[in-house]
Amino acid sequence: MPPLRIALYQGPPPATDTSTSAHGLAALDDAARRAAAQGARLLVTPELSLTGYALGDRVADLAEPADGESARALARTAARHGIALVYGYPERAGSRVHNSVQLVGPDGTRLANYRKTHLYGGFETASFTPGDQLVVQAELDGVRLGLLVCYDVEFPEAVRAHALAGTEVLLVPTALMRPYEFVAATLVPVRAWESQLFIAYANRTGAEGEFDFAGLSALAAPDGTARIRAGSGETLLVGEADPAELPAFRAQSPYLTDRRPELYRAHV
Amino acid sequence: MPPLRIALYQGPPPATDTSTSAHGLAALDDAARRAAAQGARLLVTPELSLTGYALGDRVADLAEPADGESARALARTAARHGIALVYGYPERAGSRVHNSVQLVGPDGTRLANYRKTHLYGGFETASFTPGDQLVVQAELDGVRLGLLVCYDVEFPEAVRAHALAGTEVLLVPTALMRPYEFVAATLVPVRAWESQLFIAYANRTGAEGEFDFAGLSALAAPDGTARIRAGSGETLLVGEADPAELPAFRAQSPYLTDRRPELYRAHV
Repeated sequence: MPPLRIALYQGPPPATDTSTSAHGLAALDDAARRAAAQGARLLVTPELSLTGYALGDRVADLAEPADGESARALARTAARHGIALVYGYPERAGSRVHNSVQLVGPDGTRLANYRKTHLYGGFETASFTPGDQLVVQAELDGVRLGLLVCYDVEFPEAVRAHALAGTEVLLVPTALMRPYEFVAATLVPVRAWESQLFIAYANRTGAEGEFDFAGLSALAAPDGTARIRAGSGETLLVGEADPAELPAFRAQSPYLTDRRPELYRAHV
Repeated sequence: MPPLRIALYQGPPPATDTSTSAHGLAALDDAARRAAAQGARLLVTPELSLTGYALGDRVADLAEPADGESARALARTAARHGIALVYGYPERAGSRVHNSVQLVGPDGTRLANYRKTHLYGGFETASFTPGDQLVVQAELDGVRLGLLVCYDVEFPEAVRAHALAGTEVLLVPTALMRPYEFVAATLVPVRAWESQLFIAYANRTGAEGEFDFAGLSALAAPDGTARIRAGSGETLLVGEADPAELPAFRAQSPYLTDRRPELYRAHV
């Protein structure tokens, strides 16, 4: 099995018209086209990449079901460029709205949908209902992928749960703001190290409403290195994650087998 | 309550005569004297600071009970210099030997004894029985202290358990080898950040038997910074940890209250 070639899209720039998702759909289609042209098999885009993050009170208006119109448009995008993609969007589910990410396969099939379980700050807690399924996975080309969103990855429990459930490459659309660069630069590589998996972390960039996003998107490996690392501007980066490397990494740093779960259960 | 003034002793150099603990006792007494002279209230020393780490098959010969002769000598050291101290030693407990650390108060009272729960590598697993109590704490000057040893701190579960149990300053005697500098330089500050407590990490230094220790002892704060940071040589550093700062740190990064323990329990 060849390594999984992953593109991280650090963007899009904020829309001038935020009343529809047209700007996000066009930006995601363009990113998918460019990623596919660079040989990527999977494109990871930021939290709420479809709509923008600074939605204020427009969250409910922009929310769509997981199989809604934008999902169908992005399925066509994936199939047209022959690339899997992960995008973030406000998900309508009955009377609730979740901060969700969806993984679409390279043939346009919806493979997995994850609802952010750890909401961050006042805007998110006021606008979204937290999800209650911690581990959502799918397979692509024989690689076990997992999904988290931004603040989720800052909780070691969430990444550990994925590692224990067999996730090999964890996909993390994010909207990390300044001055929290420490999270992208330092915490994310430690997560990959301590739970011995790859983490594809795709952040927003630039100013949007009251927020100033930090960029620094990365593909972090189980040896604590960043295989690719963005700066602060809009960019599309491509790197590789090879699950065939995991056994050697895990022999060198056997955290997953040296755990003492019988001691942890009293302290969750 | 004033900040807790903590000394980290990165040493001692290996003993030439490893058949007794005399070298370690003298080095610890000297470090306690120097730490007290710099106004420290607590001295943290490395894993197995009493005996040295590269003990080969001499572990059982050097092992002593928690209230043994060396413990009494170090109680006198603490009382003589009026400083609390943490030291590492092979603990005899019936037919078992643990890789333990003991905290002695500034009046010579034994305050806490912790048996390393995550043993590292071939030497340790062959020589020691792992402990069964994950969280061991004590109070000093109204500050809640916790104890872990080296490899333990690399498991986020162990540090999280301390934070949830109220540990404010986590004391981690260690014997971190090259090429694992990433742990001291990057992982330890992330532990302090994600679990919002101080970590006093005191490492060995230099070559000893087959091991080459990495130094880089540090006092890490909940903002991810190292308040003090050693290089690779023998040294004694003093810094401060102030539990009065914790509420502001924890308001800024509310990881402990934003956890979703009900989601974690199925994934321990």
